[in-house]
Amino acid sequence: MVYVTRKAHFSAAHRLFNPKFTDAQNEAVFDKCNNVHGHGHNYEIEVTVAGEPDPETGYVIDLKKLGELIEEFILTKVDHKHLNYDVPELAGIIPTAENIALVFWQLLEGRITEGTLHSVRVAESDNNFAEYFG
Amino acid sequence: MVYVTRKAHFSAAHRLFNPKFTDAQNEAVFDKCNNVHGHGHNYEIEVTVAGEPDPETGYVIDLKKLGELIEEFILTKVDHKHLNYDVPELAGIIPTAENIALVFWQLLEGRITEGTLHSVRVAESDNNFAEYFG
Amino acid sequence: MVYVTRKAHFSAAHRLFNPKFTDAQNEAVFDKCNNVHGHGHNYEIEVTVAGEPDPETGYVIDLKKLGELIEEFILTKVDHKHLNYDVPELAGIIPTAENIALVFWQLLEGRITEGTLHSVRVAESDNNFAEYFG
Amino acid sequence: MVYVTRKAHFSAAHRLFNPKFTDAQNEAVFDKCNNVHGHGHNYEIEVTVAGEPDPETGYVIDLKKLGELIEEFILTKVDHKHLNYDVPELAGIIPTAENIALVFWQLLEGRITEGTLHSVRVAESDNNFAEYFG
Amino acid sequence: MVYVTRKAHFSAAHRLFNPKFTDAQNEAVFDKCNNVHGHGHNYEIEVTVAGEPDPETGYVIDLKKLGELIEEFILTKVDHKHLNYDVPELAGIIPTAENIALVFWQLLEGRITEGTLHSVRVAESDNNFAEYFG
Amino acid sequence: MVYVTRKAHFSAAHRLFNPKFTDAQNEAVFDKCNNVHGHGHNYEIEVTVAGEPDPETGYVIDLKKLGELIEEFILTKVDHKHLNYDVPELAGIIPTAENIALVFWQLLEGRITEGTLHSVRVAESDNNFAEYFG
Repeated sequence: MVYVTRKAHFSAAHRLFNPKFTDAQNEAVFDKCNNVHGHGHNYEIEVTVAGEPDPETGYVIDLKKLGELIEEFILTKVDHKHLNYDVPELAGIIPTAENIALVFWQLLEGRITEGTLHSVRVAESDNNFAEYFG
Repeated sequence: MVYVTRKAHFSAAHRLFNPKFTDAQNEAVFDKCNNVHGHGHNYEIEVTVAGEPDPETGYVIDLKKLGELIEEFILTKVDHKHLNYDVPELAGIIPTAENIALVFWQLLEGRITEGTLHSVRVAESDNNFAEYFG
Repeated sequence: MVYVTRKAHFSAAHRLFNPKFTDAQNEAVFDKCNNVHGHGHNYEIEVTVAGEPDPETGYVIDLKKLGELIEEFILTKVDHKHLNYDVPELAGIIPTAENIALVFWQLLEGRITEGTLHSVRVAESDNNFAEYFG
Repeated sequence: MVYVTRKAHFSAAHRLFNPKFTDAQNEAVFDKCNNVHGHGHNYEIEVTVAGEPDPETGYVIDLKKLGELIEEFILTKVDHKHLNYDVPELAGIIPTAENIALVFWQLLEGRITEGTLHSVRVAESDNNFAEYFG
Repeated sequence: MVYVTRKAHFSAAHRLFNPKFTDAQNEAVFDKCNNVHGHGHNYEIEVTVAGEPDPETGYVIDLKKLGELIEEFILTKVDHKHLNYDVPELAGIIPTAENIALVFWQLLEGRITEGTLHSVRVAESDNNFAEYFG
Repeated sequence: MVYVTRKAHFSAAHRLFNPKFTDAQNEAVFDKCNNVHGHGHNYEIEVTVAGEPDPETGYVIDLKKLGELIEEFILTKVDHKHLNYDVPELAGIIPTAENIALVFWQLLEGRITEGTLHSVRVAESDNNFAEYFG
């Protein structure tokens, strides 16, 4: 088994808040991330696929193809968007890095044509990231 | 003369549009950056101060102090904000990297206590940045 | 389970030597790292916590809180210090990246308020790092 | 167990193609990577060794020594080479990141003098990498 | 005046040698870079344009457009190529970072639709780069 | 004129203090950087040389040679050292990034064999650096 990874990037706005919380609770829990109009990030995602390299190609999965799947099933939905308003797949979900990783896993899981989806990592910034292994 | 630089970071949402343009014009000019609810970035700023090192301290300006000035006069205003709605100093200004650099220069210019403000650089992403030298 | 990670940085001096070794042995084993007055690094640490996102917040653990725990239990003790002289928790320990990772694990283990401490990674430089999983 | 990692870099040319394929198949499968004269990368490799730190040295393995092993058994063979023509160990192998990682594992496996080889990661670029765990 | 910069990346092979030199001279001057089949790099280029931001758009030049010009006039010619064989604009030129920067300047100079081309920087690796200001 | 740059790295300890100051003054001015046993950094230096590329080689100066000059005249003196105790060239000098850049300039100025030394940049960390242009 070899694990291959493709990185991709998108820029988006988000706001962390829970509609069931009072304003004071949202403020206490989410602090600066609760700003009403949102703030934003250059997100970095890493998608890892596990498998045996195909002896004919040397690829577990062609990383350019993996990049195209990430483009089609993730980036076109979230790049240059506000995650709270513009992305149906995230509707009703607090867009933390954790939850975004879980949703991206679901968006990709059935789409990997070679090998097996192993992990999805979502970084909000150089210092903060979440990783999900299914 | 020695040039000293301090980097700092903030996360913010923004939307590029010109209220004098029609929707179609805004779409044509600003494309994805014109998304109604905005998108966002991890901005990186570099502030450079020029001067002769003080023989008593070896500093042009203490970079920790420069960091505190950046914090006080810039970061507290823009970090975790939506640049179109939450920042009075940017009101009426299209928040491109160019314009943000110009405004940050004005916010800092009179505040540098040692040496002379030399440049302000604003990066929206790893691939795009603007720099202003006064 | 989702794994969330917080990065942090500190600057410190250290010297690698074993008091039970002769000078020649220390020189042979630790080479340049055995310089009597020490040398130093910008250390980068990554702390990973595993857990299920809280449905109320979307967080495994608020990474800002995790950052504050790292600040309180690690950074205040080691940042801008000489690891051989100034840090009681490292007394008698050769401050390799391996041993620093082990000690940082102990400093954090009982302090994680949500989720479970999964790993501590300590990088001395871009090219050298150690990771401990408990 | 602690896991220690050493990064190293080399620059090389390569061409992806399968001599059993027709030109049209090679073009279809490998696209731009099939350019006849090859293209190239700044490769980054990460070698991870697992073990218990030696109580006398604090090292799982001295990362400088690990760096010298990487230099001797890998870098001298591939740095500033064309991987399709100049590297006997890669003869007859399509030099994808996956296959390079597998070959590098074999080159290092019997050479690690302390601890156990845990993984070899080969990155072709910031966005594409492969990792092998034996 | 504001200076805006766009970064871009390409992967290419090259070989440094001077056909007027003997093999021994080429070896002496270019050392490892003289390998017959070439080696390669992930090149990073930075193109800087100077101008006043247009008050209607806030742009010196739309960096997305600048990216498209870089794509059209540079990347399509050099990405995934061998610079000694596949690029007519580099024919007869020793493809050092210096010479590549000079040629890229010529390829872009008449193409910048807003503002003025200020500099072209070409990095072969994290440690080596060349910059040309016209 | 083309400007070529070589990056290099070293790890060192330093302490900021002025022997003419009282302890309280040193504490007030240098704060954490005044820790008695010192702290440390992974320093990054960039040396830029300006000149016209030699038509025979395409080089302003061979960056490998420039790297060797940096190694010989700078790195061997400061790498894995305590800058306050181990480096005669820094004796009596407060080792701020500013002063280190000035000293490195002097160490290199007469040694550049092709082109002209244009600048020396010294970074203490990702966020703090000083640059000197002679």
